[in-house]
Amino acid sequence: MEENNPNLKSWITVAADSDFPIQNLPFGVFSYEGNTSVGVAIGDKIVHLGHLYDAGLMSDTVEKNVFAKSSLNPFLMLGKKAWRSARKRVSELLREDNAELKGNNDLRQKCIIDQNQVTMKMPVEVASFVDFYSSIEHATNIGSMFRPNNPLMPNWKHLPVGYNGRSSSVVVSGTSVVRPKGQIKADDAEVPSFGASKLLDIELEMGFITGPGKPLSQTIPTAEALDYVFGMVLLNDWSARDIQKWEYVPLGPFLGKSFATSISPWIVTMDALEPFRASSPKQDPPVLPHLQFEGDGNYNIHLEAHIKTEKMDAPMCMTKTNFQNMYWNIPQQLAHVSSNGTNIEAGDVYGSGTVSGTTPDSLGSMLELCWRGTRPLKLPSGEERKFLLDGDEVTLKGWCQGDGYRVGFGKCHGKILPAID
Amino acid sequence: MEENNPNLKSWITVAADSDFPIQNLPFGVFSYEGNTSVGVAIGDKIVHLGHLYDAGLMSDTVEKNVFAKSSLNPFLMLGKKAWRSARKRVSELLREDNAELKGNNDLRQKCIIDQNQVTMKMPVEVASFVDFYSSIEHATNIGSMFRPNNPLMPNWKHLPVGYNGRSSSVVVSGTSVVRPKGQIKADDAEVPSFGASKLLDIELEMGFITGPGKPLSQTIPTAEALDYVFGMVLLNDWSARDIQKWEYVPLGPFLGKSFATSISPWIVTMDALEPFRASSPKQDPPVLPHLQFEGDGNYNIHLEAHIKTEKMDAPMCMTKTNFQNMYWNIPQQLAHVSSNGTNIEAGDVYGSGTVSGTTPDSLGSMLELCWRGTRPLKLPSGEERKFLLDGDEVTLKGWCQGDGYRVGFGKCHGKILPAID
Repeated sequence: MEENNPNLKSWITVAADSDFPIQNLPFGVFSYEGNTSVGVAIGDKIVHLGHLYDAGLMSDTVEKNVFAKSSLNPFLMLGKKAWRSARKRVSELLREDNAELKGNNDLRQKCIIDQNQVTMKMPVEVASFVDFYSSIEHATNIGSMFRPNNPLMPNWKHLPVGYNGRSSSVVVSGTSVVRPKGQIKADDAEVPSFGASKLLDIELEMGFITGPGKPLSQTIPTAEALDYVFGMVLLNDWSARDIQKWEYVPLGPFLGKSFATSISPWIVTMDALEPFRASSPKQDPPVLPHLQFEGDGNYNIHLEAHIKTEKMDAPMCMTKTNFQNMYWNIPQQLAHVSSNGTNIEAGDVYGSGTVSGTTPDSLGSMLELCWRGTRPLKLPSGEERKFLLDGDEVTLKGWCQGDGYRVGFGKCHGKILPAID
Repeated sequence: MEENNPNLKSWITVAADSDFPIQNLPFGVFSYEGNTSVGVAIGDKIVHLGHLYDAGLMSDTVEKNVFAKSSLNPFLMLGKKAWRSARKRVSELLREDNAELKGNNDLRQKCIIDQNQVTMKMPVEVASFVDFYSSIEHATNIGSMFRPNNPLMPNWKHLPVGYNGRSSSVVVSGTSVVRPKGQIKADDAEVPSFGASKLLDIELEMGFITGPGKPLSQTIPTAEALDYVFGMVLLNDWSARDIQKWEYVPLGPFLGKSFATSISPWIVTMDALEPFRASSPKQDPPVLPHLQFEGDGNYNIHLEAHIKTEKMDAPMCMTKTNFQNMYWNIPQQLAHVSSNGTNIEAGDVYGSGTVSGTTPDSLGSMLELCWRGTRPLKLPSGEERKFLLDGDEVTLKGWCQGDGYRVGFGKCHGKILPAID
């Protein structure tokens, strides 16, 4: 599609290393001067879609002003045709040779806002939140720590293992994370105790966000799955390993995860990611027919996690990995969820699971990076970390590298605050 | 409170065995002649609260007409004071000596509708759905089938084990349940296959529904928990045992449950249940301080599950049990969920877990009733059942028995339809 043409240029200046060139145009929700709207990022600006629609410049794309809202859900409800139409129109309006907005001084000043003047909000009202476990490196690492003789469960290569998370505590980047309390049982203790988690960790993930699927009892095949996916975000699935360890058998992770999950504010559309499709690892044994996917099911997305303690002057990169490592891809994940007929809703968030690579510096959690605390991270401040301490900040970054431009996700940031007494 | 006085009588005739005397007044959502509203059940009638508010008869209870809506969420958002105020006012209007509504022919005809003329809708937009596992009899039964030497996990008596379910597929009673397909691995098979579940089961549960809790990072102690609970429903957590068995290690149940969960349409308020509070089983060992609850934390609710196959003329009762059996009570469950700071939202549904008793005829699932298929149910039609077949209908019932009246939950019904090819 023309919106992805690497040669497109905008009349808005975009730095060469910006995550948000005209080829990206991610959607988010922001508040500015008491007003909340859907916006599109370009360079270090935001396009105010609510105003743009009222001015008549978006009225061919959707029937009502679904942009002058406090979440993207009304827009997501409209489905892929509307999503494409809106991105195409914003792309046209921002091209260097288009004067419709550029040439209208009043409207331009009203609709083009500095990103550093706004507050980014949660982009969606989260319907269901599901988290997968789709990196074979991550699953093998975790498995080998807790079940050395049996790291990968028998079902792992046959289906994308996942579980339902808690949607109420999915928060937008920038929201601080209060250290959770919970029930914890030390290995040498006879009984559990209640207190602040001591093993607070990150999980470097991507999430995908859907529009509405089919009615209850109907399924979505892998070949159709991307029709229902709006876009992707960075996702940090904060995890309290000590709470999780004591609670998770037999019904899975619960309070060790449900205190907070952070997502980046900008949703990069699947259309913008299309040029960066990539092959997935070969699946052996072959998966059952309903999970097979033809073609490049994955995306080449560079991912990083950075840490900054209160004693550090600048963040340090903890890990570099790539989303392309994932064993199970998005069409397979969505087809699996839907294979029993459950309904997919606008605003569902699906986490990929921790994205780990094959080398010690490409692991997506501190549990793996520090290998259960046996090899602490050395920080430039002279400090060490096995897990997060109060005051620590973590920032996830992610981007696809094009020829002379990048389609990026911005940041997913959170700071750890002390547990509440 | 006066609304619970056993001597109250209404000018609307209520049969002696009705679930909905004036002492109950449960809230639901219904559609009638193209109009959807919140209603209150009394006898075999419904009070149309949307119209009643517009007529000025409810205007002292809440500031806006939160009743002329398609879900109870706007009303739930207002919290316990509004809930009490609304129920008190409806109780007054329905008392035999009150002529405000009774004496206004036009309004009465508009606001009092036959239950058999309406369609009951989902009472809430489900925010989060959590399912517990709080019957010690159920947990022990299931555990002993799958882990004979270790039926109850070490954490079970220390915390109310639970997991996040899928909110999109919580449906109202009367919605048919299409047999789910899924990945299944037979014990003697080398690899899994994909197909219709053969081990489709019920779980006889109760659910409680909340209003909004505290902001993220704040906790709700057991002593305050009931302030955030609006009421209770019957809940059937349909389960595909074969799908569940293959998928659930290590992250818990997922597609074996997420195809459908049925709830009864009427939410019986915690206030109406107050006269039926009952003691819980003694917890030994004692639980940690944050989970301790003083007083009667449970409710004496009689529960039944009935089955009707296509060859049967009438339903047969499969099991009779009582909610009072539950080891963990609602305040403990809600305090546990909130103990890590996660936020409770209006419309959250919390399932109790299967309610099983101590005798073979008081078990809350077919898996237990038929003990893994080894003692099939004998039906009056000459048929047998180990699990549900296509065309089978299941109805849950529940009620609290007062002196000369009952506070009941109505029915939670579902019929199994064949898997879709």
